[in-house]
Amino acid sequence: MSNPSLLILAGDGIGPEVMGQVIRIIDWFGDKRSITFDVTEDLVGGIAYDKHGVPLHDDTMERAQQVDAVLLGAVGGPKYDDLDFSVKPERGLLRLRKEMDLYANLRPAQCFDALADFSSLKKEVVAGLDIMIVRELTSGIYFGEPRGIFEEGNERVGINTQRYTESEIDRVARSAFELARRRGNKVCSMEKANVMESGILWREVVQKVHDEDYPDVELSHMYADTGAMQLCRWPKQFDVIVTDNLFGDLLSDAAAMLTGSLGMLPSASLGAPMANGRPKALYEPVHGSAPDIAGQEKANPIACILSFAMALRYSFDMGDDAKRVEDAVEKVLSDGVRTGDLMQAGEGKAVTTVQMGNAIIDAL
Amino acid sequence: MSNPSLLILAGDGIGPEVMGQVIRIIDWFGDKRSITFDVTEDLVGGIAYDKHGVPLHDDTMERAQQVDAVLLGAVGGPKYDDLDFSVKPERGLLRLRKEMDLYANLRPAQCFDALADFSSLKKEVVAGLDIMIVRELTSGIYFGEPRGIFEEGNERVGINTQRYTESEIDRVARSAFELARRRGNKVCSMEKANVMESGILWREVVQKVHDEDYPDVELSHMYADTGAMQLCRWPKQFDVIVTDNLFGDLLSDAAAMLTGSLGMLPSASLGAPMANGRPKALYEPVHGSAPDIAGQEKANPIACILSFAMALRYSFDMGDDAKRVEDAVEKVLSDGVRTGDLMQAGEGKAVTTVQMGNAIIDAL
Ligand SMILES: CC(C)[C@H](C(=O)O)[C@@H](O)C(=O)O
Ligand SMILES: CC(C)[C@H](C(=O)O)[C@@H](O)C(=O)O
Repeated sequence: MSNPSLLILAGDGIGPEVMGQVIRIIDWFGDKRSITFDVTEDLVGGIAYDKHGVPLHDDTMERAQQVDAVLLGAVGGPKYDDLDFSVKPERGLLRLRKEMDLYANLRPAQCFDALADFSSLKKEVVAGLDIMIVRELTSGIYFGEPRGIFEEGNERVGINTQRYTESEIDRVARSAFELARRRGNKVCSMEKANVMESGILWREVVQKVHDEDYPDVELSHMYADTGAMQLCRWPKQFDVIVTDNLFGDLLSDAAAMLTGSLGMLPSASLGAPMANGRPKALYEPVHGSAPDIAGQEKANPIACILSFAMALRYSFDMGDDAKRVEDAVEKVLSDGVRTGDLMQAGEGKAVTTVQMGNAIIDAL
Repeated sequence: MSNPSLLILAGDGIGPEVMGQVIRIIDWFGDKRSITFDVTEDLVGGIAYDKHGVPLHDDTMERAQQVDAVLLGAVGGPKYDDLDFSVKPERGLLRLRKEMDLYANLRPAQCFDALADFSSLKKEVVAGLDIMIVRELTSGIYFGEPRGIFEEGNERVGINTQRYTESEIDRVARSAFELARRRGNKVCSMEKANVMESGILWREVVQKVHDEDYPDVELSHMYADTGAMQLCRWPKQFDVIVTDNLFGDLLSDAAAMLTGSLGMLPSASLGAPMANGRPKALYEPVHGSAPDIAGQEKANPIACILSFAMALRYSFDMGDDAKRVEDAVEKVLSDGVRTGDLMQAGEGKAVTTVQMGNAIIDAL
């Protein structure tokens, strides 16, 4: 059997720095565990635009379709703010999601014990928190047509379209129920069925999938505004949350921030199984490209490293190795190793990106 | 000059209970301050559906257009969950907003000193917090066409349309800048201009209004997902936030919850000036109809009372009287008077809705 293959797209801002540490861990697996990945690297985002005039070259797209998993760093930066919408760095990422049909975006919001104090929430509200947000990633208002800015009478109008088919809702609901069975067995589905017809269909299909195939999982429905509130009030009431692309964008960011562990959180975007049984997959940290600290060796590589751990688990069925990486991260944190983002002002000395990588490799 | 006129729509759930206390305060103004309001009462929401088969009767709509201000309690409840979308209780509220053209929804998120401990956030993060969210309320995905559930091939698709014209963005931006000038002089505008063209237009128009007519106000732009994060991390960085209907729905609920004062927060929905110079206006608490505690005299009437205070300020130019009501609420809270929602489990004895009303009237 051939080696598992990875396409690394480090992207912009702190992307290359944090991805550098992941590459070292991949090497560690080759050296110490004789697990060799076939790694190719390529460009996405602003850096791809600089070279090719597009934020994702067709050849890169082609390669992404062929590998077992894509690892992505981050895209975007102020340098690209004034680019035309169609070639903005984000379009590269959105094209990957769409063309690989990565419909289930898994975003764990987990509070690391060593960091519970770091949240803006009270310790008792977040300590031990471990929820999973499943965000639909290939449809909804991100991709619906018609869209654009049009002339109408003597002014312009900006239009986007929220659009969900039954089968799009069905498949992401299944992902959520499957995950729940391996966790706390509870799913909360969020929409605005009180004001949006697409929300009515969403609620109905999620309920139907539940009743037909997952009656053993506890299912509840919540309006997304109430969901935002409840995440802030008592996030531990949730196990798995399933929601659409746009609500998922806001809710998962809020949830990530609440944990106090934003620089720590990974994500997996999964599609349908390929011929080899592995799902199409892309892994990326939840945080962005942080242009303000890029190139200064200050960035926290943990979210990117934990994204690689998710790849081990979801793409390569290497749950034990994933756990090994996660445990190494836990250990390093409880030893008190901290990048700047994990410290309060005036609280001791921050390590660099590479030093954090060193510590994690030592702990492995 | 004729008396100022009010239409009271107490609605469903705890609506009538909390509105009962507002009516007592209106009476207090007549008795003690010789300020008489012409009050009429009518139905909205589920209770209107029960009587008329629609959540807002045309006669009520007509009356709402004529009075100086509408005071609304809350709408909705499980009894109405299975009603057709077109006659759900919420449609009554949405019709009022739309036909009165109440485009600027002002939602203060304020942390009451006496309640700072009650937030799920750390005290230092919320103590003294005072931000104002200005939510566009008459357009966007709440009202855009096409909308509905349609057959397509052999499945159904749910569709809603986000739609903003330049003039819709322009007018709500002006409301935000005007408010900022009377507060901290800072506006942060939130959208998803990185993925939605309607967000691009939003950003552009807000910037233009700023540059042309409010260059003295500090303006920043933020993606709405980052906004959700930043509200959770350090809400005091904001003064006025302006955003669209749907983002405003989620963000203002999250912000309200963060203050720990959800049962305390009022809102004003304002439209264009009428012939008498007063804006079309509707005032309502941010909280919902709380069917689980309805009819038990447990509800906290403060949000509804503070909504009346907003009416005094924004509709009747009675800022001093508004302040008098707000100070009475502050006093009662610092005296330790608490409805159940303002107490931790096992923390002493809660007062009833009426007792809270008594305390506030005594403090006046
Ligand atoms: C970068 C941007 C296009 C993206 C999104 O809106 O989906 C990001 O916020 C995310 O959550 O992954
Ligand atoms: C009741 C509902 C229609 C309403 C909304 O979504 O606007 C509510 O959540 C609000 O925020 O006022």
